[in-house]
Amino acid sequence: MQIAMIFRSSSAVKILADSNPINNQTSNISHSQRELIATAYDPGLVRELGKRLAQSLASHLASVQSGAGPVLNWQDPPANVLAAQKQIAQGDSASNSLENENLAQRFDALIQQALSCGQNLHHPHYVGHQVPASVPLAALFDAATTLTNQVMAIYEMGPWATAVERAVVQRLGEAIGFAADEFGGLITSGGSLANLTALLTARNVALGDSWTQGLTAKSAAPVLVAHAEAHYCITRSAGILGLGTEQVVRVPIDSRRRMDVDQLDKTLANLRNQNTPIIAVSAAACATPVGAFDPLNDIAEVCRRHEVWLHVDAAHGGAACLSTKYRHLVAGLELADSVVCDAHKMLFMPALCALVFYRNREHRFATFAQTAPYLFDPSAPGMAEYDNGMVNLECTKRAAAMGLWGVWSMFGQRLFEAMVDTTFDLGHRFYEILEEQTDFEPFCQPECNIAVFRYLPNKIRNRSAKEVDNFQLELRRAVVQSGEFYLVQTTLDKRSYLRTTIINPLTTEDHLKNLLDTLRIHGERLL
Amino acid sequence: MQIAMIFRSSSAVKILADSNPINNQTSNISHSQRELIATAYDPGLVRELGKRLAQSLASHLASVQSGAGPVLNWQDPPANVLAAQKQIAQGDSASNSLENENLAQRFDALIQQALSCGQNLHHPHYVGHQVPASVPLAALFDAATTLTNQVMAIYEMGPWATAVERAVVQRLGEAIGFAADEFGGLITSGGSLANLTALLTARNVALGDSWTQGLTAKSAAPVLVAHAEAHYCITRSAGILGLGTEQVVRVPIDSRRRMDVDQLDKTLANLRNQNTPIIAVSAAACATPVGAFDPLNDIAEVCRRHEVWLHVDAAHGGAACLSTKYRHLVAGLELADSVVCDAHKMLFMPALCALVFYRNREHRFATFAQTAPYLFDPSAPGMAEYDNGMVNLECTKRAAAMGLWGVWSMFGQRLFEAMVDTTFDLGHRFYEILEEQTDFEPFCQPECNIAVFRYLPNKIRNRSAKEVDNFQLELRRAVVQSGEFYLVQTTLDKRSYLRTTIINPLTTEDHLKNLLDTLRIHGERLL
Repeated sequence: MQIAMIFRSSSAVKILADSNPINNQTSNISHSQRELIATAYDPGLVRELGKRLAQSLASHLASVQSGAGPVLNWQDPPANVLAAQKQIAQGDSASNSLENENLAQRFDALIQQALSCGQNLHHPHYVGHQVPASVPLAALFDAATTLTNQVMAIYEMGPWATAVERAVVQRLGEAIGFAADEFGGLITSGGSLANLTALLTARNVALGDSWTQGLTAKSAAPVLVAHAEAHYCITRSAGILGLGTEQVVRVPIDSRRRMDVDQLDKTLANLRNQNTPIIAVSAAACATPVGAFDPLNDIAEVCRRHEVWLHVDAAHGGAACLSTKYRHLVAGLELADSVVCDAHKMLFMPALCALVFYRNREHRFATFAQTAPYLFDPSAPGMAEYDNGMVNLECTKRAAAMGLWGVWSMFGQRLFEAMVDTTFDLGHRFYEILEEQTDFEPFCQPECNIAVFRYLPNKIRNRSAKEVDNFQLELRRAVVQSGEFYLVQTTLDKRSYLRTTIINPLTTEDHLKNLLDTLRIHGERLL
Repeated sequence: MQIAMIFRSSSAVKILADSNPINNQTSNISHSQRELIATAYDPGLVRELGKRLAQSLASHLASVQSGAGPVLNWQDPPANVLAAQKQIAQGDSASNSLENENLAQRFDALIQQALSCGQNLHHPHYVGHQVPASVPLAALFDAATTLTNQVMAIYEMGPWATAVERAVVQRLGEAIGFAADEFGGLITSGGSLANLTALLTARNVALGDSWTQGLTAKSAAPVLVAHAEAHYCITRSAGILGLGTEQVVRVPIDSRRRMDVDQLDKTLANLRNQNTPIIAVSAAACATPVGAFDPLNDIAEVCRRHEVWLHVDAAHGGAACLSTKYRHLVAGLELADSVVCDAHKMLFMPALCALVFYRNREHRFATFAQTAPYLFDPSAPGMAEYDNGMVNLECTKRAAAMGLWGVWSMFGQRLFEAMVDTTFDLGHRFYEILEEQTDFEPFCQPECNIAVFRYLPNKIRNRSAKEVDNFQLELRRAVVQSGEFYLVQTTLDKRSYLRTTIINPLTTEDHLKNLLDTLRIHGERLL
């Protein structure tokens, strides 16, 4: 493998032409295992392929951000799987011998395949799930710790990764309004795992010995009280934690689809009267379907009165605390016992970087109560404070905060505020635009960057509910598979709607007007 | 911010000198939010900083791999946290205005700080926890999907990410020996989460309605039967799942610290006689402390006879299936109902990429039994097969298989085989070396790349057990904080030992001899 050998021996990296006579002389030499490893770990190869990657990614990003090409590169799943399998088979085959293959060209081809078959979140026509067009530079910071494989569980394995996570948790927790020297937190692999971690803590606090004894030892079946439209991971948590999904008591919502505080009060009073153990109240900031923010100050007061743990799933909306204009939406978040906020949503970080906060930092250690002799060093007991394994479900854990730390250190809070303001503002403006149309019907006035609506041209408006609903779903699928826009769907009060999240800060009002025209064109074709 | 403006306007990226008169003309113009966002998303900036990053990482890797500098850059945690916080504060401060700051220089400085404060897994003197010196190119493939933020939960959000995951799961599952058209699998965020997922599935299969009804509805307390030295996440899983950590029945180990098959048989017979529900038997391939591989064929036969779900935590050793020389260690793995294998261990991938396999693919859907209207499209029911959210605890999920897919497609199975063979071989050789010394005592003959031993010079050999144990711990700390080597410790039969995992394929026999000399020097100082 000439390329790698040259990379290793020279700081001025050049790829020699295939016609180089040295290549031909050595092309039939069989590589030993050690040579193969040396090639795979060659720093010169990393330099050359890294530079090529930077070029590929920048070109791709420029194209996608300009609105060129499709949003989603639609392909039926089996065809994509087969294509991915073919590349692995090519790697395995004898004909892929390193002597005869230009590794750099192979790398370029594999990267191009990945880029050309994906979902283009950075396209301004991406208005789909709550996954952002992430700040591209975050991925560069992330690459530094991924390449060097900085991990946690214990401080020693990722001292800087741990420090960066601590700094980010502290900065964001203070922005939420927690007392600087009282709260604690951690970063974990996604919002579902974050909610599970917080609810596990709440379970262990509410039911003293459930960690060791399990739940079969309990005479009364405990319940989890949740927002009627809580994310599915809340119910799943009840299933995982041995409470049972049917033990989730759903609090009715008000006309704005927020948790109804009076109903919550009654629910908790009834449960207390029946001596039913209550794990927690799980509120939302905001709930997923239409982005409704619960009245947290009022909910916290009710929970305090009934002495119930308040958990807030602020996966999407927590970032509002960084905006002067929108932080009122999460007023009271600092009163919760536990809070989840996904940096990979409205802090525009790539997946996954989910934060869990505890108002009382000691609660971190209620999640688990375990030691492992080879992990937690009795000769340095103070280190447990910095050993993430004590509070995280993960043992080995990614340095997931690096992107957020790097971008924050370069741009400051003002960037996050700008992204929240821009996308939330546009959510409100989109509602006004929808209101101005005769053939579109917004479901409700948005509180943030999530807007739900239906396309109801005259031809469909008076048909049966089922026909109207199916039309929305078919319309969405046609638009999505065309690649022109990416939006999603939801079910509210048993009816189907189109749903958009404006989560690319480069999306503008004009793009949204274009969306409506695109829906009209595809709708016309369907009818 | 001149740099970004130039990047945006020119495909030929250049950083102009600060003396450029255009810079001075515009340096006091206040940036609007939209301009700030445009800077952060500028493809030209990505190109320039990406190239700088490739240079920084390659130089760092070359230095570390050559053995220059410390393994662990030791710094007390509070000092590191303070340093990380200072950078965030600098980002927030008005003096960090984009007009006056060279973003590229700031980026370089932040990257250098991260690289200079970490744990250098690629240093040949890294012989610590089971976290590898990962194949550097994997991080480049990873960066492509991180920058474009390809995620899963549903196929549409990451069609290529999904395809790549499917291809990798299929390839590795077949290598384990599962029937190609019968097994299924998934990739999740770490070995602990992988084990939790598999054991949750086993719980739901064993206790039909525990998902919906919870465990308080059960009259008999179920147990989880586990290897006596199972990883701590197995016990934690019992705590999380509502079984209770004290409901873990530990099967005694034999003289080689493998699960004792006769004892397992008796344990299961006793439990069945008592009508105690059994969730699963959790075996290990290999167990963490000394790397002992359980006799899987025999264990599978016992489990089959007692009709108990067999789970195998092959997080570390599963990769042996790719080696002709060592695959005998995991013979019988294909008989397990569920298997966990961490690609971020012996497949030398960066964290996190953990695979879960089910012998019967239908079991994937027993883990959860839930729908979310905005995620799972009733207008395309067949898609659930490709929507990871159905089988994964994560909702939004990283494209964690990209690195493995890319490296496999470039180098094929032979690279993984080479890395397994090289490190396992060296584990055996290290034992021979230890045996040749009069002042070192190996704990047992290794089966793979994990070796456990003590340093017992004459001065310490005859002291009390407590003094001998403390000496090992203090010796380890001294060596680790010196940066000369990184190794870990463990407790076996209530005694303390030094523990090494040879998990950098660039580590050689000479490095290990050097380790012994280093321990002698630090030991002399301590005594």
